Amino acid sequence: MDIFIEPIGKLINEFSKLPGVGKKTAQRYAYKIIDMPEAEARAFADAILGVKRKVKYCKVCGNFTEEETCAICRVREKTTICVVKEPKDVAAIEKLHEFKGVYHVLHGVIDPLSGVGPNDIRIRELLARLQDGGVKEVIVATNPDVSGDATAMYIAKLIKPFDITVTRLAHGIPIGSEIEYTDEVTLARAFVERNQI
Amino acid sequence: MDIFIEPIGKLINEFSKLPGVGKKTAQRYAYKIIDMPEAEARAFADAILGVKRKVKYCKVCGNFTEEETCAICRVREKTTICVVKEPKDVAAIEKLHEFKGVYHVLHGVIDPLSGVGPNDIRIRELLARLQDGGVKEVIVATNPDVSGDATAMYIAKLIKPFDITVTRLAHGIPIGSEIEYTDEVTLARAFVERNQI
Repeated sequence: MDIFIEPIGKLINEFSKLPGVGKKTAQRYAYKIIDMPEAEARAFADAILGVKRKVKYCKVCGNFTEEETCAICRVREKTTICVVKEPKDVAAIEKLHEFKGVYHVLHGVIDPLSGVGPNDIRIRELLARLQDGGVKEVIVATNPDVSGDATAMYIAKLIKPFDITVTRLAHGIPIGSEIEYTDEVTLARAFVERNQI
Repeated sequence: MDIFIEPIGKLINEFSKLPGVGKKTAQRYAYKIIDMPEAEARAFADAILGVKRKVKYCKVCGNFTEEETCAICRVREKTTICVVKEPKDVAAIEKLHEFKGVYHVLHGVIDPLSGVGPNDIRIRELLARLQDGGVKEVIVATNPDVSGDATAMYIAKLIKPFDITVTRLAHGIPIGSEIEYTDEVTLARAFVERNQI
């Protein structure tokens, strides 16, 4: 005899597909759904279907949007483009309310080991945007890992012929952390990128 | 401008309703749904609607079931009844494959501070089952907290007139843990409930 009846087992299985969710957590989530009023559970299911139905990618930058182009592309000044790997990186940067330019989402990074080459991500679309003119700076904000760095270097090289500044986010010791506990790679990078005070 | 477009914000909000899920985790879950193939997201939504539509409570024991009575009530021997607070406790005990009797789910415990009295939980239904005869032992497996203990005592008193043994799960030091790190209440309980070896 199964411990869970079929509809509950099914829901636990679905929740287990979420990142970092094991059987035990999935179970807790499933119990929560069972305890929800009918209307609330329906709203939950509708929200899941809603993102699949309504969320598209911006024709210009590749960010999430419900329209042809995203709200950022529609209103922001376009002299600075921040290049990121995924739409969620846009959300992370937007939270700062610091960056006032537009984005370009690559939808991936160059990673030969996984068979992802320059043509598999939205680099061509980035170059097309630069050819239109008006862009003064491209900030490459890919993750500070091997493939993120490789992608940044590749993009920098491609942009060189244009009269455009290419920058990369600074690496170093996180604010509020301690030198003693900073990992060696980051600490070494902080030395190399040290600034005059 | 909102950081998230409306359908994504809505889904993040829904995921935030799950126990222990904050904005950040809800966001990760929402991104996972966005990345899912359409069919997979639909299966997820269907699973949520499925539990609301199909899961009922067993007429006899109060456990989850798709039928009138649950699979446990249908096939198990009925001389021993294990009384638990919620259906999820049934799942926890069933995992042991140790207990061979049937259950009785109270759907709550007596908790005057929250306005839950004996008539608000399924105690009357338990007594009705006992009156039918054949039951030899009632194991009260409510949680070892104030309301769980109070409920156990209350039920034990009610059952006294019947010729039925009432037992309660043992309290003590968890297997594999160390005496040094066992909390004081548990350790004191372990002294009181010490067994001859």
